[in-house]
Amino acid sequence: MLGSGLASGRSAAAASPGAPAPASSNAYAAEQLEQARALRERCLVDDTGYELLRSLTRQVGPRFAGSPGDARAVAWALERLRALGFKNVHAEPVTVPHWIRGTCSAELVSPWPQQLAAAALGGSVGTPDAGLEAEIVPVTNLDELSRGDTTRFAGRIVFYTGRMQRAQNGSGYGVAVTVRGRGAAEAARRGAVGVVIRSVGTDRNRLPHTGSMRNEAGDVQIPALAISNPDADLLEDQLALGQPVRLRMRSTSQWADSVRSANVIGEIPGRERPRELVVLGAHLDSWDLGTGAQDDGAGVAIMTAAARMIGLSPERPRRTVRLVLFANEEFGLSGARTYARDHAGEAAAHVLGMESDLGAYAPLGLRSRVLPEKLGAIRDMQRVLAPLGVEYRGNDASGDADVGQLVPLGIPVCDLDTDATEYFDWHHTANDTFDKVDPDLLRRNVACYAVLAWLAADYAPGFGRAPKTR
Amino acid sequence: MLGSGLASGRSAAAASPGAPAPASSNAYAAEQLEQARALRERCLVDDTGYELLRSLTRQVGPRFAGSPGDARAVAWALERLRALGFKNVHAEPVTVPHWIRGTCSAELVSPWPQQLAAAALGGSVGTPDAGLEAEIVPVTNLDELSRGDTTRFAGRIVFYTGRMQRAQNGSGYGVAVTVRGRGAAEAARRGAVGVVIRSVGTDRNRLPHTGSMRNEAGDVQIPALAISNPDADLLEDQLALGQPVRLRMRSTSQWADSVRSANVIGEIPGRERPRELVVLGAHLDSWDLGTGAQDDGAGVAIMTAAARMIGLSPERPRRTVRLVLFANEEFGLSGARTYARDHAGEAAAHVLGMESDLGAYAPLGLRSRVLPEKLGAIRDMQRVLAPLGVEYRGNDASGDADVGQLVPLGIPVCDLDTDATEYFDWHHTANDTFDKVDPDLLRRNVACYAVLAWLAADYAPGFGRAPKTR
Repeated sequence: MLGSGLASGRSAAAASPGAPAPASSNAYAAEQLEQARALRERCLVDDTGYELLRSLTRQVGPRFAGSPGDARAVAWALERLRALGFKNVHAEPVTVPHWIRGTCSAELVSPWPQQLAAAALGGSVGTPDAGLEAEIVPVTNLDELSRGDTTRFAGRIVFYTGRMQRAQNGSGYGVAVTVRGRGAAEAARRGAVGVVIRSVGTDRNRLPHTGSMRNEAGDVQIPALAISNPDADLLEDQLALGQPVRLRMRSTSQWADSVRSANVIGEIPGRERPRELVVLGAHLDSWDLGTGAQDDGAGVAIMTAAARMIGLSPERPRRTVRLVLFANEEFGLSGARTYARDHAGEAAAHVLGMESDLGAYAPLGLRSRVLPEKLGAIRDMQRVLAPLGVEYRGNDASGDADVGQLVPLGIPVCDLDTDATEYFDWHHTANDTFDKVDPDLLRRNVACYAVLAWLAADYAPGFGRAPKTR
Repeated sequence: MLGSGLASGRSAAAASPGAPAPASSNAYAAEQLEQARALRERCLVDDTGYELLRSLTRQVGPRFAGSPGDARAVAWALERLRALGFKNVHAEPVTVPHWIRGTCSAELVSPWPQQLAAAALGGSVGTPDAGLEAEIVPVTNLDELSRGDTTRFAGRIVFYTGRMQRAQNGSGYGVAVTVRGRGAAEAARRGAVGVVIRSVGTDRNRLPHTGSMRNEAGDVQIPALAISNPDADLLEDQLALGQPVRLRMRSTSQWADSVRSANVIGEIPGRERPRELVVLGAHLDSWDLGTGAQDDGAGVAIMTAAARMIGLSPERPRRTVRLVLFANEEFGLSGARTYARDHAGEAAAHVLGMESDLGAYAPLGLRSRVLPEKLGAIRDMQRVLAPLGVEYRGNDASGDADVGQLVPLGIPVCDLDTDATEYFDWHHTANDTFDKVDPDLLRRNVACYAVLAWLAADYAPGFGRAPKTR
């Protein structure tokens, strides 16, 4: 999961829990609902998804856009989809930016020397070879930076101290992550020579959270590092005594030429209208520090398994279920943008899109973004998921980072809200590994998406276009 | 906390919980017990210990024996004890071995390349400059190694897979830690060229647990690394597919000449018999990866605060409370051995010893190691601590790693058992930082040791010598 869009969107939406449930309109025949329930039950005892995730993290591991792992991931996905019986399995070329992390260190020099656990933010420039040393100026966030006396920052390293708050809906992320995207550029405008941010994460491990910066034309680029939460505590603690605190940072991060990657696509053809599509999306790339298990190996595994389980159903749905494993979500949404561009001509054939990119945690709520007259079908879907704890939460779905790129094309989307309480403990850190994923929770996600996709693909009237506003 | 002695000892002892409580013998006058209870209450609202720990972790940080941080820690302790009003504050020289970690990496080369999070074990030799690459052979532990077909290990890297079990009494540590001490030497005897161990720890973070190896004369020395639990999972998972797994390890660890460090001592003089001593011990050194907050900054803070609170009591106890902050517990008990040697002549003046070296967690039990006729006084002590949840657990105290060196001199000891459930999540990792310590639990420890030391120092008959057997 990349950025601020989803979580901040959810934050607003969560302010109105218990949105009025649309009335049932008998959108589905009893037999269809029975098939969906049976599919749900089969998914709850199937380990296709969990074993896919094991394989991806074991045999590919980190797969940052443009890295050798990225290329291995594409090959892995093509091979796995074919082995699982998907049709029309192919890679669609995507050009991705190529940033190389290199090595990085951060060290308090005075008054009390200590090493800090740090990681360069994605897209950061490196320091001079000898490193960069300056006095630290703390600010809470971008608001405080913009209000501050600008002369304080000239020649200094700005330290963003804001701490991400833990929340079931992940809403703390959108609030905290702004400094990751724009903190360096805004500090540079005020003369700062470097930036350190408190990790955007809810854990207390000495493992920094990386993530992408958002560079814009005209930005002055200065090196930017994240330090782990305990190291941020230490730095604040040294600053609290009122003496000047000096930091030395060193990073060999650099940009290289763009690289070819690919979206990987596979389909479960529909029985009646194979050219009409329900899209199940997840992103194949990951950050480089961990093995991308929760972000977004889980999504890859969940959506692949959900489509596979539909393929194994006694009756295929009317329409095709298209699995899209997007390239480079983390570092600029290259895959989703390329897909939206290349497939704009067949936008009308896309009946509904869904994405899994918040780990494999307990499903809690279903959101839709469909025309009001289609809410009866959504309500029927939610009822099939209700035994798994899924409530209906409103018609304000975003489609998440990748599938959200399809919304401007008028393609309806659904979101499955999951429990994000723990997700940001691991997100974008070396700790995002297979052991953090619970197989039962993963199966529950597979069941939800399989049911949603099967029912969407089998809904005879279709969903039309998405409403222009939420 | 260093090694296997304490936890394995406790493991055995814990098999007989609810040891018969010694009957009260009215060892203390009502007024003494009232003073102890009042001291307990004052400790529960005092933050001397927590602020000491903040200062030690902020202003000194890592303080591995022989490192610059070790020297800074000695200076810090002398300054702090004087500022807190201790008497006879001084440093007693201790020669410590000096091992330099250098840098370290471990990388799966085939069949599926991935970087592992690794740390050299303390005392390990380095690899050749170019690194060392070999096929991995997994074994659970030393028993399995010794039973195995020895020819399997020649030219290979042995991977010890045994996993430490979480337990309230920390008993999993003694079981698991044997491979850390002797795993490399035993593998080398069978022709192995390197060793990797699953971290001796109960967490699932990608932060390896270091700790000392136990070298003996005649050992062939080969490089030994710990990998984090998630990395050990990954390595096992790759091995499970049955293909040869090759690892490349590189470490620049090396030995240097021994260095002078010091035990730091300060006293709260007794009002009647100042030459008789109750010793409160903790170790000032720490491992180098974290800031040694739980191990054993907490012990330093707890024992210093406990002695300080006794110094602030309306009535000083009869005897002197001597605080000893030991040098180099982690890498060979240099400080405790030097203290025991240098103070053997005044062994008879040592009435009782206690040590805090299991972090700042909930106190649960009191153990003693005194003559049977002294158990009435111990029982009275425990009663004052009962409102804090401390039960009496038997006459089998060990004195722990440092103060345990005084037991052969006939010096009685007490142990305060604390809840070790979480301690081995942080132990010997980069994660052992200030944020992991709960101020309320730390205060409870201060209260317990202050009460125990005050009552021991004020117990007119004294405790005589320790029993030869437990």
